[in-house]
Amino acid sequence: MATISRRRAVRTRVGRRRRGWFSERSDSVAVEEPMEVRLEVPARGGTREHPVSVTMRTPGDDFELAAGFLFTEGVVTDPRALADVRYCREVEPQEYNVVTATLRDPGAFDAASLTRNFYVTSSCGVCGKASLESVEVMGCAAVPDGTLRIDESALRALPDRLRTAQHVFERTGGIHAAGLFDAVGRIVLVREDVGRHNAVDKVVGALALAGGLPGSERGLVVSGRSSFEILQKAAMAGFPMVVAVGAPSSLAVVFARRFNMTLAGFAKADGFNIYSGGERIAGLEGVSGVEEVAEPERGR
Amino acid sequence: MATISRRRAVRTRVGRRRRGWFSERSDSVAVEEPMEVRLEVPARGGTREHPVSVTMRTPGDDFELAAGFLFTEGVVTDPRALADVRYCREVEPQEYNVVTATLRDPGAFDAASLTRNFYVTSSCGVCGKASLESVEVMGCAAVPDGTLRIDESALRALPDRLRTAQHVFERTGGIHAAGLFDAVGRIVLVREDVGRHNAVDKVVGALALAGGLPGSERGLVVSGRSSFEILQKAAMAGFPMVVAVGAPSSLAVVFARRFNMTLAGFAKADGFNIYSGGERIAGLEGVSGVEEVAEPERGR
Repeated sequence: MATISRRRAVRTRVGRRRRGWFSERSDSVAVEEPMEVRLEVPARGGTREHPVSVTMRTPGDDFELAAGFLFTEGVVTDPRALADVRYCREVEPQEYNVVTATLRDPGAFDAASLTRNFYVTSSCGVCGKASLESVEVMGCAAVPDGTLRIDESALRALPDRLRTAQHVFERTGGIHAAGLFDAVGRIVLVREDVGRHNAVDKVVGALALAGGLPGSERGLVVSGRSSFEILQKAAMAGFPMVVAVGAPSSLAVVFARRFNMTLAGFAKADGFNIYSGGERIAGLEGVSGVEEVAEPERGR
Repeated sequence: MATISRRRAVRTRVGRRRRGWFSERSDSVAVEEPMEVRLEVPARGGTREHPVSVTMRTPGDDFELAAGFLFTEGVVTDPRALADVRYCREVEPQEYNVVTATLRDPGAFDAASLTRNFYVTSSCGVCGKASLESVEVMGCAAVPDGTLRIDESALRALPDRLRTAQHVFERTGGIHAAGLFDAVGRIVLVREDVGRHNAVDKVVGALALAGGLPGSERGLVVSGRSSFEILQKAAMAGFPMVVAVGAPSSLAVVFARRFNMTLAGFAKADGFNIYSGGERIAGLEGVSGVEEVAEPERGR
């Protein structure tokens, strides 16, 4: 198996133990490779290049990943200021693992962001409250109040539709996906990555490069759990709704409530949990009734 | 729901849609809070404090998380040099989210590590090969050649045993676990966290603080997928075996083969895949036979 590959999945020899049998065969695994992002900013007498990050990612959609990351992490405050995203030309041999984004407007570069995530300080040192405030510092107070509403039956269909739209998972069983859905629950865009944050950045980056931000008429569906970072990235992109196949963390719930976002978890064909913003989900009034159960059956 | 909590799970109001019913009730979610790690190193005329990282984590085992992170990321090259790990005293109000580790020996501090992960450079810019080499730079050539072997039936029992040992998952359905197992497949230590890397760091940190490293007679079992970082942390701790409930990435496979580690994936009661180091798994010779199947049935 080659270490370096532009492919999203590669084949490798695998021993398989199943129900009393042992076999050896070739099987697919999702590709994981580091990618470095650099940002070129106009400066007096030319440009200045800033190292931004090194992330483990699945190759493909690299420019979208770079653009999405730069925007959702607040390094580039306005995606329209991106003049160009390309593989770094000075790297020899060219392995397509170094991406350089160029800004046309230095005013859209927030230099403080390069240390801010690393070092969130406040009177309480570092805490959930400070993390929420750091998102507001990035210019995100609440997601735009759009008109997006979705029927509860369409919400329940999202995980199956996301799975159907995934190509690399089908082969490897080991890759996350993020999808964008519209008001009738159609998946209009899907991106995959071994890193669940990267999959979201690729979706946001695709919109950013196409001039489609903010995405206030679109919702985000993710194959895994929801956490602070997933909500942060969705909020930066203006998505009012996040539907996760897995569980939310405490800070994801607090985040969604504070930023006026809809957050659903444990989504599957026969149900879901709703943690925030239930007013964007239509059709709940049509179900059989409202029960209050003392001993909860866990939704997973 | 309080944003700030020392608990690992908190209760929140949740709307639940299930099979034609809608209910509203209280349910548990796993706590996610940022934690900052600082390292105090003896310097001329006193000590110098270095900011190291801010990570989203589930509270609990904070000192283990800090010690494990410092060691597996190569910031502290010898865990025996740690004199003390405590909550930072200068933080007001005390939220127990800032942890300061103190070194007694400045020789065990690798200042370059604070930028190395951020900026892995080599002739190819950044690539999987460079990532593997960066682990060797941290002083890890191959895991110690211990005597750990495990029966294939014990390996298959690990996921259920890990799940049984998890307490927060039971309540929240949304938290990762890492466990340490011995040669008969007993889980001897388990730690949980919303971040799967953190769960591994907590396990390694628990050993580090107890003087139990390298852990060459122990294997690591993880509730999720295996990736470069999981393998890196296991290698730093000297674990010769990693068993994952999920899929491996390409770089996890390459890593395991290069560092002479055993890597199993898709582990469950009736089977597993083995990607590297099958010689540490006993009992495969006793199964019904070896089949070669043209069209693989995916193991998940």
